[in-house]
Amino acid sequence: MSYDWETYKVCIFGSGNWGSAIAKIVGKNVTMIEDFDTEVAWYVYEEIIEDRKLTDIINETHENVKYLPNQIIPENVIAIPDPVEAAKDANILIFVMPRKFIRQLCCALEGRINPNAIGCSLIKGFQSDKSGNIRQYSHLIAEKLKIQTAVVMGAGSAGEVADGNFSETTIGSVDREVGRILQVLIETPHFLTVVSNDADGVEICSALKNIVACGAGFLDALDHGNSTTAILIRLALIEMIDFVDVFFPDTKLSTFFQSCGIVNLISTCFGCQNRRISEAYIRSQKTLVKVEKDLLNGQKLLGAEISEQIYHMIVRTEAEERFPIFFIIHKIFTREAKPEQLLESMRNSHCAHFRFRHNLDW
Amino acid sequence: MSYDWETYKVCIFGSGNWGSAIAKIVGKNVTMIEDFDTEVAWYVYEEIIEDRKLTDIINETHENVKYLPNQIIPENVIAIPDPVEAAKDANILIFVMPRKFIRQLCCALEGRINPNAIGCSLIKGFQSDKSGNIRQYSHLIAEKLKIQTAVVMGAGSAGEVADGNFSETTIGSVDREVGRILQVLIETPHFLTVVSNDADGVEICSALKNIVACGAGFLDALDHGNSTTAILIRLALIEMIDFVDVFFPDTKLSTFFQSCGIVNLISTCFGCQNRRISEAYIRSQKTLVKVEKDLLNGQKLLGAEISEQIYHMIVRTEAEERFPIFFIIHKIFTREAKPEQLLESMRNSHCAHFRFRHNLDW
Repeated sequence: MSYDWETYKVCIFGSGNWGSAIAKIVGKNVTMIEDFDTEVAWYVYEEIIEDRKLTDIINETHENVKYLPNQIIPENVIAIPDPVEAAKDANILIFVMPRKFIRQLCCALEGRINPNAIGCSLIKGFQSDKSGNIRQYSHLIAEKLKIQTAVVMGAGSAGEVADGNFSETTIGSVDREVGRILQVLIETPHFLTVVSNDADGVEICSALKNIVACGAGFLDALDHGNSTTAILIRLALIEMIDFVDVFFPDTKLSTFFQSCGIVNLISTCFGCQNRRISEAYIRSQKTLVKVEKDLLNGQKLLGAEISEQIYHMIVRTEAEERFPIFFIIHKIFTREAKPEQLLESMRNSHCAHFRFRHNLDW
Repeated sequence: MSYDWETYKVCIFGSGNWGSAIAKIVGKNVTMIEDFDTEVAWYVYEEIIEDRKLTDIINETHENVKYLPNQIIPENVIAIPDPVEAAKDANILIFVMPRKFIRQLCCALEGRINPNAIGCSLIKGFQSDKSGNIRQYSHLIAEKLKIQTAVVMGAGSAGEVADGNFSETTIGSVDREVGRILQVLIETPHFLTVVSNDADGVEICSALKNIVACGAGFLDALDHGNSTTAILIRLALIEMIDFVDVFFPDTKLSTFFQSCGIVNLISTCFGCQNRRISEAYIRSQKTLVKVEKDLLNGQKLLGAEISEQIYHMIVRTEAEERFPIFFIIHKIFTREAKPEQLLESMRNSHCAHFRFRHNLDW
């Protein structure tokens, strides 16, 4: 495949806080880099805010007043309420929207995009296919739209990135040239990037860490301190590496040292929704659905969702002893296990990891 | 070398909080494991507490009232004020005392211990030799006393370990049998251990992390959040790995995945003296000596001390570009650099690490 277009024209799908932060960065970068069309198309799901269309507000005030207020989006980023219209002429398609809408969007775009376009997904989590196997969203996009799809996964919040705080991300692309194009498109002096050709590793490792953050929340509910969280991080990191070894053997160890790996894992475990909601779930004794309704406005908790998907893979392959932490976190979510059992599983994980890895070291 | 003694007799040198925590664990373990003499000799530096000798208090109340109050030390651990007397007949010597006293202790013990004894050091940090090279304390002990010396390095505080909270440590021993003996001696159901034959890696990685924690303190003083700390941890971890590659090429990557590595690094960066004092140093604008006097009772800040030692190695080998974070942290301590320059060095570290490692990945 070759990318010798005269210009790269970018379209961004998604207008939440992350979509807006990316629109801010990309909108600025395209004006400074040769070979890019200076106009960026931005598919914004239409909403009415105080009797006005959100796309109209954005195109006039250059601010996403609902999802990322107080941040100016460059004027060359044009909000468009129709995804097919937005995708017209674009050859770089960036997907940064809630996971539950992605399949529907792909159906709408199918056969109606530039067939040589590059896809780029910032969507975290997995789809489960009919046989219960997990599938990365980048693969869903690639298959539905028949385009090569890279991923961008890192730590930090949309607000921090938009504010220009020091932050970092990992671009995963099996094609080096695609990786380089996306790098010049999204990197800034404050938003550093590393390109990895281990795209699957980048995406999977970034999803799995959400499970661990739930475990950190359970430890909080048991009133454990930072040292225990740090031990959980280490043991779960080894489970993540082992999991990828077993189920995605082509991925690389070095990916775990990237932003999508260790930075993402640490910052998620020390402060994110997954941790906070998981703690609340244990302390409240409400059902998960009720907690999600009360605290997440009905959204599904990402870590709990991924935990369930991984649990089924572990059980199906009878790998409970190898992944005791992943295994127990789902059981705690279903209340079949007590949160205290996480500590027992950490002990077992310690032994499992000793058995599987460290006898080999001598 | 063979260790076919009839019994192992343990002597512990050091009566601070860590020495007391180890005395509590070892004292209990020796009574439950065959082959160990049930009496443990404990060298306690004599002090007078309310007109009574500390060794007398300990031998009567079984509590180190000064350094680890409210913890009962088993009765079979006997406090002895003379190190040579304590070491008599012992063939396992555990060193867990402030680093500044270790040379003097070794001089006192030289030629007066069991020549087949095993040494075990819990002392963090490095000695600098005359040419400015760093030397591990375990090597100092091994050379002065002519005994093989293993290390025990992990995260967690002495209080947590003594309380029986969930904690973890790494035993580094080039001799597998020595590693196993120490493992049965210190492991408990709540204090998990992994034995690594990469003893140098275990000791060095556990020392270097103190520098990083100082960097985390500088970021706090600049009012950065957890994400930036997580990025610092990742970049500094890669510098640690690179540093060990350059200066101690026989060490192993897997050591960084042990408790002495990543757990130690994370828990230190999220909460320890190095971080707290480094933040205070920046915010106060006092000299480091003054801050150490005010906040550490005149003790030297470990991270600052190690930072200076590493700085000189980096400068001597002209490796500033390869280790920009280690380099700048010392410069910030001497006030030759502003704390803001740490962020610039993190950017450079990101690039250095990209250059040195990730171009190779393709």
